[in-house]
Amino acid sequence: MFYLIRTIGTNVRTPTGPVVVYRPAMNAPPHMSPEQFRALGHRLIDWIADYHATHENRPVAPEIRPGALLSRLDEHPPEGPADDAEWDQILTDLSELIVPQLMHWQSPNFFGYFPCNHSGPGILGELVSAGLDVNGMLWATSPAATELEMRTLDWMAELIGLPDRFRFGQAGADATGGGCIQGTASESTLVSLLAARTRAVSAGIDPAKLRLYASAHAHSSITKAAMIAGLADGPGDTMHLRLIPGVCEGGDLSANSSAHQGGAASCRPSTSLHYMDTTALARTINEDQRKGLHPIWVCATIGTTGSEAIDSLTDIAAVIPEHTWLHIDAAYTGAALVCPEYRWMIEGVERADSLCFNPHKWLLTNFDCDCFWVADADALTRALSIMPEYLRNKATDAGTVVDYRDWQVPLGRRFRALKLWFVLRHYGRRGLQAHIREHIRLAAWFEAQVLASEHLVLAAPRVTGLICFRHREGDTASRELFERINASGEVFISHTTLPGPDGTEHFTLRVSIGSTLTQEHHVQSLWERISQA
Amino acid sequence: MFYLIRTIGTNVRTPTGPVVVYRPAMNAPPHMSPEQFRALGHRLIDWIADYHATHENRPVAPEIRPGALLSRLDEHPPEGPADDAEWDQILTDLSELIVPQLMHWQSPNFFGYFPCNHSGPGILGELVSAGLDVNGMLWATSPAATELEMRTLDWMAELIGLPDRFRFGQAGADATGGGCIQGTASESTLVSLLAARTRAVSAGIDPAKLRLYASAHAHSSITKAAMIAGLADGPGDTMHLRLIPGVCEGGDLSANSSAHQGGAASCRPSTSLHYMDTTALARTINEDQRKGLHPIWVCATIGTTGSEAIDSLTDIAAVIPEHTWLHIDAAYTGAALVCPEYRWMIEGVERADSLCFNPHKWLLTNFDCDCFWVADADALTRALSIMPEYLRNKATDAGTVVDYRDWQVPLGRRFRALKLWFVLRHYGRRGLQAHIREHIRLAAWFEAQVLASEHLVLAAPRVTGLICFRHREGDTASRELFERINASGEVFISHTTLPGPDGTEHFTLRVSIGSTLTQEHHVQSLWERISQA
Repeated sequence: MFYLIRTIGTNVRTPTGPVVVYRPAMNAPPHMSPEQFRALGHRLIDWIADYHATHENRPVAPEIRPGALLSRLDEHPPEGPADDAEWDQILTDLSELIVPQLMHWQSPNFFGYFPCNHSGPGILGELVSAGLDVNGMLWATSPAATELEMRTLDWMAELIGLPDRFRFGQAGADATGGGCIQGTASESTLVSLLAARTRAVSAGIDPAKLRLYASAHAHSSITKAAMIAGLADGPGDTMHLRLIPGVCEGGDLSANSSAHQGGAASCRPSTSLHYMDTTALARTINEDQRKGLHPIWVCATIGTTGSEAIDSLTDIAAVIPEHTWLHIDAAYTGAALVCPEYRWMIEGVERADSLCFNPHKWLLTNFDCDCFWVADADALTRALSIMPEYLRNKATDAGTVVDYRDWQVPLGRRFRALKLWFVLRHYGRRGLQAHIREHIRLAAWFEAQVLASEHLVLAAPRVTGLICFRHREGDTASRELFERINASGEVFISHTTLPGPDGTEHFTLRVSIGSTLTQEHHVQSLWERISQA
Repeated sequence: MFYLIRTIGTNVRTPTGPVVVYRPAMNAPPHMSPEQFRALGHRLIDWIADYHATHENRPVAPEIRPGALLSRLDEHPPEGPADDAEWDQILTDLSELIVPQLMHWQSPNFFGYFPCNHSGPGILGELVSAGLDVNGMLWATSPAATELEMRTLDWMAELIGLPDRFRFGQAGADATGGGCIQGTASESTLVSLLAARTRAVSAGIDPAKLRLYASAHAHSSITKAAMIAGLADGPGDTMHLRLIPGVCEGGDLSANSSAHQGGAASCRPSTSLHYMDTTALARTINEDQRKGLHPIWVCATIGTTGSEAIDSLTDIAAVIPEHTWLHIDAAYTGAALVCPEYRWMIEGVERADSLCFNPHKWLLTNFDCDCFWVADADALTRALSIMPEYLRNKATDAGTVVDYRDWQVPLGRRFRALKLWFVLRHYGRRGLQAHIREHIRLAAWFEAQVLASEHLVLAAPRVTGLICFRHREGDTASRELFERINASGEVFISHTTLPGPDGTEHFTLRVSIGSTLTQEHHVQSLWERISQA
């Protein structure tokens, strides 16, 4: 990477005549020198620290018109190469052209969607991964990349309280189950569905008769996975995929939701909404089975995107046929499982075949890092394994190693375990728990303000860090409130629609507390802004 | 990320009674301080520079037994949090436990597979991307992330000589075609196939009658994509996917292959092998059509994994039906297109519907970075777009922006354009050309040694940086030679099988020259090692 290459031309005589090997017509490749790399690297480390120290000076969501950046970028590529002055210009462009046109997901005033938070250790892990730049497609192509990932996923499984059958444990590559890092929960959903389909088709089931089930509140990636797998023609196609309605009526939303009191007590909210109606699930499955159709895959959501609803694993397990693959999508909420008081959310997980959650959402590991566990890895690799000659190696042939390319859609894979390992080594169990509990404390405070407000009403019980609310006067007032809160760009919240007690969809504001930098005074400022609006 | 969070508990009275918001029972989250981040960041930048300066001191492919690292890692996660002394231990573990158990893809003595090379600018771009950690799933969720990617892909399209219909150009988001970054070529293959399927199924074609075509020498990801899409039950299933044989007989392999003479002349080898037999393709398509089947997707490979064979786009275009989607997989070889003397490889590209190549292979951008272009982006997004309420926004509704989540399998996406932009800004067109030409110069030198050798024979014509050869005495001698070359771990080459003139598969050694650090003396040392073996 860092060396000037010598440019000695060579002429070689071969049995069939002279081979003229060209002398380069131009200079050697202008690779960055080690000194330049060190200097720029130190500068960019400081630049990142400065960026995060100055979030208060810039809007989290600036007003930007489409094409605003495009119009300021050269239409044609540079002829290059860059000298030191050009690097000054590149860093100026970064700060002056690019940064002002970003939405700042790491800002303490970012309360939109779900968080996508990160941390110093995570950033540094990504840096080292880029510096090593090994391809861990097979165990043999970088053994440590695979083995560190195996152990890190075992650690994480222990941290969130998964049963042992999702861990490699002492058995290592001989274990039946284990975990890996996928890019996103979308990919975990897809590969679990592919495993279920392959298992069913191998057992002789007609692909046309396969049926999949998930909550109507489940993530859009469920439908997308079905489309990719050829089991849905589009978003509205319910031929193979049954979306089961959520429960829309519940108890008193003004009762206190989940908040940790400092002890080991369970933080289960006293009421819940929008979780999958398992009576409807049972009815749909029974109807399908009577028609000779085969339920092969059920996705339970632990923390829906709209309102963080928690599907009941025990209720689902009670109504699905024995050979149905049960996948759990805990993309956001799964992070809270590092705190034992939230383990009630996965009661019944013993029945699951696979589970995923995203440390890149709320567990301090920069995007992308989705942890995916499977109980029967063979079922997965049967769906995804191909072995061309150029990838054959002794370790794979001996069957003594895990080859992660067979667990995922892509072939190549980068060394993502490093950043997760850095995060776990830095925070440890207690640090991660403190991080989650602090955000939940702030969310509980915010929820209490909503409950105390004359104008607002909770749209769903708060479970961990997400608060969903509406204006009491209806959708128009809610929408106006939403626009007014985001208008300045100084804070950012997002919205959705959720069914109200009347069963119809209503405009709903979402405040998601999860940015690493968010402190109490940011949440208080947000609340003041909402009160004024 | 970098601040200690204040921990003031708050009690709030609500209309329905007191809500007790808990005081954290333990300390505030132990986030890394800005000072600690700067100090560790500078240290790790230097660590990376030192790592690359010391490749000669370590084997590129050390002998490692499965489980060797696992057995040295704690079975259980740390309780944490880490103090400064613990960070010293983490970095010691990185250097002493992990690095010795890696295969070093960036070593100048790595000649295996295809390269996965990187550069200072690429590493620093990845660092900045991790530091910003924005999620560019929609234009609205970080406009600059989308617009920098649009422009960078336009630049790259220009650099490799693609037709204008693959560029956004002045039309921006209104353009019909354009490019994006995918994780890997596997994903580009998959999404192009999904676009073709959706287009066909929308036109009323029975999914059971869809047919796909690729060279038998094409990458394993073609079959894997068909499996994922539900168009193949496994590696051997040829119901939907037709693998067309490659041409096994050619001219005189001892004639000079492609090598740039310093001018603008085309570097087309005088002979070629293993490219798709378009007579067989035409015959297979005709047979399928006569049976009422529908060819919907053809993948042409520009640089097969086995021997860098170049399928002829003009010959393929001449025999495929008008509405067939033509995808071009130029994963490795595409990088050479930055040099005009290699543009002969994509003559006929005007007919293509999509094309991809991987800057993370041979164009100095660390993994993952696959550039994917499509002429009709609508066809792609129809296959992959879902719009749940929580992602709706004014810019998307107005149709004035590009939302890249609809171009890919995952929803979330990181800001990968930054590293590619850094690489293009640093090297410029001339720097990239010098980089490619230098490696090809070294490959041509190595090829000349093979041609001059009494014991070795070329197994395929060299096109750019890959040399395939065998021992004249047959497979056993070739395999022994391969084992002996790799035995010390001081260099690493890989192998495959390729059909010989007799039509049967023979063990073949592959030397791929593409590591950023590889200089002439490394290639000379490799040749000396081979001569001795």
